[in-house]
Amino acid sequence: MNYEFLIKDLNLNKSQKNIGTDKGLAKIGDAIVNLAYSVAKSIFLTKNNQNDKIIRTGKKVSKNVLEVALKDADMKNYAKTRANAHDLADTVEALVAYVWLSNKMTLKEIIDFLRDNLSGDLYNRTEEIKNATIAFANLLNYIKKFLPEK
Amino acid sequence: MNYEFLIKDLNLNKSQKNIGTDKGLAKIGDAIVNLAYSVAKSIFLTKNNQNDKIIRTGKKVSKNVLEVALKDADMKNYAKTRANAHDLADTVEALVAYVWLSNKMTLKEIIDFLRDNLSGDLYNRTEEIKNATIAFANLLNYIKKFLPEK
Repeated sequence: MNYEFLIKDLNLNKSQKNIGTDKGLAKIGDAIVNLAYSVAKSIFLTKNNQNDKIIRTGKKVSKNVLEVALKDADMKNYAKTRANAHDLADTVEALVAYVWLSNKMTLKEIIDFLRDNLSGDLYNRTEEIKNATIAFANLLNYIKKFLPEK
Repeated sequence: MNYEFLIKDLNLNKSQKNIGTDKGLAKIGDAIVNLAYSVAKSIFLTKNNQNDKIIRTGKKVSKNVLEVALKDADMKNYAKTRANAHDLADTVEALVAYVWLSNKMTLKEIIDFLRDNLSGDLYNRTEEIKNATIAFANLLNYIKKFLPEK
């Protein structure tokens, strides 16, 4: 995408916490997460239904899903000290935005990763939350290698 | 992106209204519009400040901006009959998603188009609304050529 200049300052003083607690990055990441999940879920539902029906859907990913995914990926150290649930979700969004703006993963790669890591009956709300959390925790584990070591 | 299979049904029976009133398409478009505007605004603010400061920001584009943009682009005929403000905004989102899923514009192209069509003092809320509306109306006029003739 070549918008790497938008993270130039973060790369001068690169640290897990600088990236994971950046509020502007979290706002951009919020939009990436919602778009990627919406398309991934649409593809998943379209590929996994009996009637060859095309399903388009959109879904704001809940803060709770992202918060638990960060904990499950054992990445709370990227968030601020004494972070609440909302802060932890923001950290996930900031990390995803960082990886996207650094050109380490394209939007298509994020979408396809989530699609490949979704499973189960996403029409069942409880099951969707559980499986979306797993998909995001897997994504976080995958992107660790693109993030600073400390 | 190659997610064109997600609009295969719409392309079998292609019409302005079928595309402009599709609810699932509008949900995907909502996320595209928010991401594209957030990045475009971040770039615009980063390029247009005195102190070489990097600005990252995110912004949910208000329904009002999109509604007025659709009217300004004279494209109310893509929306449903007796559409309210919310319906008109949904139509803008559906059209943007259609163009993106048909590979007529990449996300980068949408971002760069909005960035090039932004102007003024976006820290002033009233001015931002006015100028964001202009940018989206211009985008709508630009994408007309990718949409069915009736």
